[in-house]
Amino acid sequence: MNGQHALKALDAWRVAPGATLDLAALDADAHPASGGKRSTDEARLKDLGATLGELQGRLYANQQKAVLLVLQGMDASGKDGVVRRVFSQVSPLGVRAHAFAVPAGSETRHDFLWRVHAQTPPRGEIAIFNRSHYEDVVVASVRNLVPAPQVTRRLQHIRHFEQMLVDEGTVVLKLFLHLSYEEQGERLRDRLATREKQWKLQASDIADRAHWKTFRRAWERAIEATSTDAAPWYVVPANSRFQRDLMVAELMVHHLAALHLEYPPATLPPDTIIP
Amino acid sequence: MNGQHALKALDAWRVAPGATLDLAALDADAHPASGGKRSTDEARLKDLGATLGELQGRLYANQQKAVLLVLQGMDASGKDGVVRRVFSQVSPLGVRAHAFAVPAGSETRHDFLWRVHAQTPPRGEIAIFNRSHYEDVVVASVRNLVPAPQVTRRLQHIRHFEQMLVDEGTVVLKLFLHLSYEEQGERLRDRLATREKQWKLQASDIADRAHWKTFRRAWERAIEATSTDAAPWYVVPANSRFQRDLMVAELMVHHLAALHLEYPPATLPPDTIIP
Repeated sequence: MNGQHALKALDAWRVAPGATLDLAALDADAHPASGGKRSTDEARLKDLGATLGELQGRLYANQQKAVLLVLQGMDASGKDGVVRRVFSQVSPLGVRAHAFAVPAGSETRHDFLWRVHAQTPPRGEIAIFNRSHYEDVVVASVRNLVPAPQVTRRLQHIRHFEQMLVDEGTVVLKLFLHLSYEEQGERLRDRLATREKQWKLQASDIADRAHWKTFRRAWERAIEATSTDAAPWYVVPANSRFQRDLMVAELMVHHLAALHLEYPPATLPPDTIIP
Repeated sequence: MNGQHALKALDAWRVAPGATLDLAALDADAHPASGGKRSTDEARLKDLGATLGELQGRLYANQQKAVLLVLQGMDASGKDGVVRRVFSQVSPLGVRAHAFAVPAGSETRHDFLWRVHAQTPPRGEIAIFNRSHYEDVVVASVRNLVPAPQVTRRLQHIRHFEQMLVDEGTVVLKLFLHLSYEEQGERLRDRLATREKQWKLQASDIADRAHWKTFRRAWERAIEATSTDAAPWYVVPANSRFQRDLMVAELMVHHLAALHLEYPPATLPPDTIIP
């Protein structure tokens, strides 16, 4: 599948502004970025990785625009995996990943956007948020940490904040990695059984799983309220790790390519004699 | 003049949301905070300083609210003087002043609110901005650094940003130190002639003075667009340093007292035996 075709298929997974989101009705096993054959998909993912590296080089040289990728999803939906695998061919000079844990220390004494604003990308760079300010709405509302009217206001503050970032030169792209309840069960059981993965599993993950529908509803509400033309949300079917990566790579390349970034002109004439 | 009477007089200097501001029509020699007699004013300012120190102690112990004071004004209007003199009795543990110069280095690669958001006060503290994000609107528009539609959007982003700070627990108070053209001339000439003040005078200050009305209009426009109930602007007549300080102190004390902050309850029973 070529880029243009792929993109049309992916567009169906963008949450239109004002639209209702029903995650249960969306197939977490779907392969929207697939061209049909595993071998072509694999070649495509390799190509996309190289293209992403090249586009990041232009972004870096150009220093006019920044890119913010927000990754969210239920536990075990693959946020870490996406960061590792999609960005493996991008220079760490120009891409920074930030994992946001539960706010602690001085973070708790500031507004909920303070710590994320600090980590937004400067022009020339890509920032990846592994979890984000959205947790301060979703987790806060599920756990009743924040009164409902404040949750609603926070959603509006997020819209305004992201619009400001966009107006001032940042591309904002938000992806919800969409896992089925069954697949999450598989992955959590795998984490429990695998020595190298046990550190990733907390008792709270299992407790949260009991509130799957409550979290899903909270995510739907947050995404509905904040998917805008300026800063869209995409749902990324994530039961297949490979197809998930392919779709994320396709979306990143598309959004970077759309900037039409050129390398800056040479500062010296080509016949400059370098002694 | 007692606090309640003083406050009513000061309220006339608050810029009502949506109101038009005509700085030329406002007397920079006015003494809205004065009780009439210099000696009573002096005693009052001393009292206010002590009260401010006491209120800051409660704010610090309580850690529920933060206070952001934005100081703006033409060159030589006394922004540094206010910081030094009004806050002299407040512990530096709980008040931080930030002077914002022309954006440089990595600041220029971020949105205009990035560096100011980073310095907003945590709960329990007072932050004073000596110049602020407003320069990125006013100076940027006067010097044509930013296209007009972007200036308008920035004003909206400022409204949204400050509303977010307020909703999340910060008191935002913005003061425009209002100097007459003649008084600025006096002060700049004094800076030129006084050895200890020469470092404060730049050629650009004199160049800017030639654009006095353009700057004044840009300030009027910025203040009109951003004086809200949540984050009001006050015009502070500033031809008299003493009266300016008195009014700023009166406003600070009023806004802090309005929080009705109590010291947190004792954590130990009073009959605890300390060996």
